[in-house]
Amino acid sequence: MAAVDGGARGPLRDGPVAKRPTKHGNFLEEFRPGQVFRHKRGKTITEGLFAVFTDFCFTTNALAKNRRYAEAYGFRGLVAPPGLVMNVVFSQSVEDVSENGRANLEYIDMRFGTPVCVGDTIEAESTVLGVKASSRERDRGVVHVETVGRNQDGQVVLAYQRKVQVWKGDPDAPVAEGEAPARALPVSFTLPPYDPRRDYRARAHLTSSDTYFEDFHVGDVFEHSRGRVITTEHIALTGMLDNTSQVHCNQWMIDQDPERFLGGQLIVYGGIPFSLCLGLSSPDVADNALGDVRYATGRHTAPAFAGDTVFATTDIRGLGDLPGRPDLGVLDTVLRGHKFVRKGGAAEKVEIFYLEREIAVKRRSHYA
Amino acid sequence: MAAVDGGARGPLRDGPVAKRPTKHGNFLEEFRPGQVFRHKRGKTITEGLFAVFTDFCFTTNALAKNRRYAEAYGFRGLVAPPGLVMNVVFSQSVEDVSENGRANLEYIDMRFGTPVCVGDTIEAESTVLGVKASSRERDRGVVHVETVGRNQDGQVVLAYQRKVQVWKGDPDAPVAEGEAPARALPVSFTLPPYDPRRDYRARAHLTSSDTYFEDFHVGDVFEHSRGRVITTEHIALTGMLDNTSQVHCNQWMIDQDPERFLGGQLIVYGGIPFSLCLGLSSPDVADNALGDVRYATGRHTAPAFAGDTVFATTDIRGLGDLPGRPDLGVLDTVLRGHKFVRKGGAAEKVEIFYLEREIAVKRRSHYA
Amino acid sequence: MAAVDGGARGPLRDGPVAKRPTKHGNFLEEFRPGQVFRHKRGKTITEGLFAVFTDFCFTTNALAKNRRYAEAYGFRGLVAPPGLVMNVVFSQSVEDVSENGRANLEYIDMRFGTPVCVGDTIEAESTVLGVKASSRERDRGVVHVETVGRNQDGQVVLAYQRKVQVWKGDPDAPVAEGEAPARALPVSFTLPPYDPRRDYRARAHLTSSDTYFEDFHVGDVFEHSRGRVITTEHIALTGMLDNTSQVHCNQWMIDQDPERFLGGQLIVYGGIPFSLCLGLSSPDVADNALGDVRYATGRHTAPAFAGDTVFATTDIRGLGDLPGRPDLGVLDTVLRGHKFVRKGGAAEKVEIFYLEREIAVKRRSHYA
Repeated sequence: MAAVDGGARGPLRDGPVAKRPTKHGNFLEEFRPGQVFRHKRGKTITEGLFAVFTDFCFTTNALAKNRRYAEAYGFRGLVAPPGLVMNVVFSQSVEDVSENGRANLEYIDMRFGTPVCVGDTIEAESTVLGVKASSRERDRGVVHVETVGRNQDGQVVLAYQRKVQVWKGDPDAPVAEGEAPARALPVSFTLPPYDPRRDYRARAHLTSSDTYFEDFHVGDVFEHSRGRVITTEHIALTGMLDNTSQVHCNQWMIDQDPERFLGGQLIVYGGIPFSLCLGLSSPDVADNALGDVRYATGRHTAPAFAGDTVFATTDIRGLGDLPGRPDLGVLDTVLRGHKFVRKGGAAEKVEIFYLEREIAVKRRSHYA
Repeated sequence: MAAVDGGARGPLRDGPVAKRPTKHGNFLEEFRPGQVFRHKRGKTITEGLFAVFTDFCFTTNALAKNRRYAEAYGFRGLVAPPGLVMNVVFSQSVEDVSENGRANLEYIDMRFGTPVCVGDTIEAESTVLGVKASSRERDRGVVHVETVGRNQDGQVVLAYQRKVQVWKGDPDAPVAEGEAPARALPVSFTLPPYDPRRDYRARAHLTSSDTYFEDFHVGDVFEHSRGRVITTEHIALTGMLDNTSQVHCNQWMIDQDPERFLGGQLIVYGGIPFSLCLGLSSPDVADNALGDVRYATGRHTAPAFAGDTVFATTDIRGLGDLPGRPDLGVLDTVLRGHKFVRKGGAAEKVEIFYLEREIAVKRRSHYA
Repeated sequence: MAAVDGGARGPLRDGPVAKRPTKHGNFLEEFRPGQVFRHKRGKTITEGLFAVFTDFCFTTNALAKNRRYAEAYGFRGLVAPPGLVMNVVFSQSVEDVSENGRANLEYIDMRFGTPVCVGDTIEAESTVLGVKASSRERDRGVVHVETVGRNQDGQVVLAYQRKVQVWKGDPDAPVAEGEAPARALPVSFTLPPYDPRRDYRARAHLTSSDTYFEDFHVGDVFEHSRGRVITTEHIALTGMLDNTSQVHCNQWMIDQDPERFLGGQLIVYGGIPFSLCLGLSSPDVADNALGDVRYATGRHTAPAFAGDTVFATTDIRGLGDLPGRPDLGVLDTVLRGHKFVRKGGAAEKVEIFYLEREIAVKRRSHYA
C-alpha cells in the first residue's frame, strides 16, 4: 500500500501504466546542511481557523476574544495567541522537514516578532543547520532546522530552530552528515506603543485583576486548575493547520504496523498540547500579557493521545524588564503540561510538555 | 490534584516555593446579594464562531444562512440565531457565576433586544439577586442572578435571570443569604422597519411557504421530525463559547469521582441542547421568524450526554400582535426537547428541555 | 416516533390538539417530471465554513490557503475548492430532492462556471428530469434532477444532473413516472485572464514544482500516499452544509431499525468522501490547478462510515487543451477513492468513489 511504502520513489512500470511516486516529504538521506526550503502554500489566518483553533486552546486573553479590546490597545484586529502563530509557521514546514518524521525532539530559541492578527497571510522557510544519522538505529536520524515565518509585509512573526527525528527512506542510503551555521536572523518583538492618552483603565475589568506584573514573585508555582480532554477532534485541528503528517490522521497505516508508531495509535500532533498548555495557563499568568517574547527551549516529553486530559503548571523563575517598555515586565517561566495514566489501580502523573517561556505582562501601574 | 481540590484558596508555603491558588470562579459563600460582576473578556462574533455554532444547531432560518437575504431585510449582515446570542452572553457569566456550579436550575424572563450580527462584539455583566443555602445539603446552595449583554454600541442584546446551584468551597463557611431587587432593565425588541418599497416577495422562495403567522393555530402541536445526535464535539463547541466549566471538558476530574457529577460522565453544557432544540424546531415554527422575543421561563429537565440524539416538539399556546408591527405576529409556544433512553428492552422518552418561547413571525399578508 | 414515521402527512386530530405534520422533503410519489424547485435558504460562504470544510479535505492548492496568492492570480479572494462548491450547491437541494433519499446513485455532467470565493452567496434550483418507480421494490424509486447553483451576481457556479433513490411515503401511492427534457443550461468555465505582466514566477515556490501540465503523461497512475480517517466529525461537517438528511445524523432513528439503513449505522454523507478524495489527490495532480472543469460522471460505489480511513488514486486518461487558454492544459483523469475493510484476518480494498474528472492545470512554460 502506498501509504506505508515510502521506500519506492522511482517510477515503476507495471505493465502498460506508469505508477508515479506520490510520497511526500524528505527522508533523512535527502537533507543537506545549508539547504533552504521555501515552504509551499502559505496560510491566511481566516476567522474560521482563528476561532476554532484559538478557542480550542482555552486561552482567556481578551486580545484573542474581543476585537474592540484589541483595537483599543492599538492592534489591527483580533490577535492570534502564541500557540496559533507557532502552529501556522511550524505546520508549513512539515511537508518538507517532518512529513516522514518519527518524533519532534526539541524547539530551540523560538522568538516572536510582529503580532499576527486575523486576516494576515503567513509564509515560511527553513534552513537545514544539521544532519546526523542515529548511531544505534540505522533507519533514522536527526535533522536540525531553523524556520522563519513572515507576514504579508515581509515582517518576521516567528523564528526558531528545531530538531526532529526523521526516518530514512532506504536504510542503506548514505547520509550527508554535517552542520551549517545559523543565519543571522534578527527578530524584533514588536507591540503597539503604550499611549497614555488611551483610556486603558476603562477596559481593565475585561481582564483579571490579580495577574499584573506586580502580582508575580520568583518561586511562585501555579498549578493551573483547569483541565481539558483531547478528543478525536485533534485530527481535524491538525488538518486545519495543513499539517499532513500521517501519524496524526492515517488510522489504517497505524493499524497495519502498530509497533512502528509511538503508542501504537494515532498520536496527537505536538502543536495541539503545546497550544493547549499555553491556553490552560493563561488565566493565571497571561491574562494581562500583551504577547509571548521567547521560548528558550521546549520539548514533548511524552506523547498525547485522544482521551487524554491535559493539565498544566507554571513556575515563575525570574522577573525582568523589557527594554524601552516601562509599562511591561517579562515573566521568565517554565510551563509544563501533564496528564494522568492509570497503571494498575493507581494514577501516575506523566509530564508531556516542557517549555521555557518569557511573557510580556502589563504593569498595574500603567494599566489599572 | 489541583483540578478537583478547589477548597485551598490561600497561598500555601511548601518549602521554598509559594503555591499560588488558581481555582477560578466563586463558591456559594463568596456571593453577596446586590453584588455586580462586570464579566471578563467579552466576545467578538467571528465568522468562525458564527458558522460552526449556527450550523451545528440545524437552524433553517435564512437570516443566519444567506447574507443577501439578511441585508434585503435591513439587517447589517448575517443574523445570529437566538441560541447563539444566548450562549455568547451566558458563557461570559460562567467564570464568575457558575464555574463552580453543579446544575443550572432555571432561566427566567429572557428578553431579546437589538439583533446580533456577524462582527459584533458582546460584553456582559451580572447582578446577584439572591443567595440561598440548601436546607438539605450543606455543600451547596442556589445563586440567583440577572445578566445583561450589550453590543459595541452599548445596546442591550439580551437580558435574563437565572438560578444556578453552586458548590460551597468550604461546607462550614457562612453564607450571605438574602435577596436584592432586580434592576429596572428595559429591553427593547428591535428589528429593521418594515419597508413596503422592499421587494420581500422576490425572496419568498428562500423560506418555507407554510410557516407564516397565518398558518398557526392555538393548540397546534409540532413533533419536529428531525433529530440530531450530539457527539464529543460538544466539548469543542462549549470551548468556542469560552465556557470553561470543568464538568463539560475535564474527563479526568469526572473519572476520579463519578458519583459527585451528574450522570458520572462529562455532561453536555446546557446551551448546546438549548440551541439544538431551537434549531430543530426552526423549519416548522421559525423559518419565517424575524427573531425570538422572550423566554418567560426555561429549564433543563434532564442532562444530556455525548451519544444522545435530541428531538424537539413545539406547542402553540397563543397568537398575539406585536405593538407597532402589523407585519408580524407573535407565536406563544412551548418548546420541549427530549431524548430516548433504553431501560431494559424498552425505550423511554425523557424530556431534557422546557422553554416558554415567544417568536416574532412574518405575516403572509406582508411578505409573500 | 415522528422521525421514522414519515407516512402521516395530514393533520391528525388527537383529542383537543392538532398534530401538525413536520416531515420534510418529498417522497417518490410527490415528484413530477418538469417540476422546478427553487431551493430554500441559500448559503453565504463564511470564513468559518470555508476554513473548516476546505482544510478538512486536505487540499494543498494554494488558491484555497493563501489569499495573497489567490489575489496575485486575479481571484477576488480565497477560492473555494471544487468539493466545497459542489457541496454547497448539492446540500441546498437535499431537503427538496433527497431528504427522504436512500442512496445517491450518480452524478452526471457536473460543470463548473464562475469561481466561488469566500464571501460569495450561492443559491440553487433543481428541475426534475425523470421519475421512475423501482420494478423490484415497491417502497422506492429513482428521481433524476438537474441542479444549478448561482452566485450573488446571477452567474452559474455549478450545474449537474444526479440520480437518487428515494423512498415512497406510501407504498401504494401512484408514481408520476416519466421524463422531461433537460434545460439548455450553458455553463462557462471562467478564470481570471492570464496576464503576462503579473510576476507569477515570483510565487512559483508556493506550489509543487513537478505538477505542471508538462509533467503528466497518459497512462500515469498516482496512488496518492496520504490517507485520512473520517471521525464522527462528519456529522458536524454535514450540518455545516445545511444537509439535513437524517441518515447522516439521527443515531436514534438508525438504532431503531438498522436493517432499513445502509450498513446499519450513520452513513457518511457522500459529499464528505467526495471532497476528501479530491483533496487527497491534490498534491499530486491539482497543486497547480486553477480549477476543476467538469465531472462527466461520478458515483459512490460503497458507503463510508466513521472510522474509515480514505485513500485515493488518480489515472491520467488524456491530455487536452483549453480553448482560448494556451497557458493551461486539461488533465482528463479518473479519481477513485477506497478504504480497507477487514474480513477475517485479511484486509480487502473496497472502492468507495469513482469520478471522471477534468482539471485545468497550469503549464510550466507560462508560470514557472
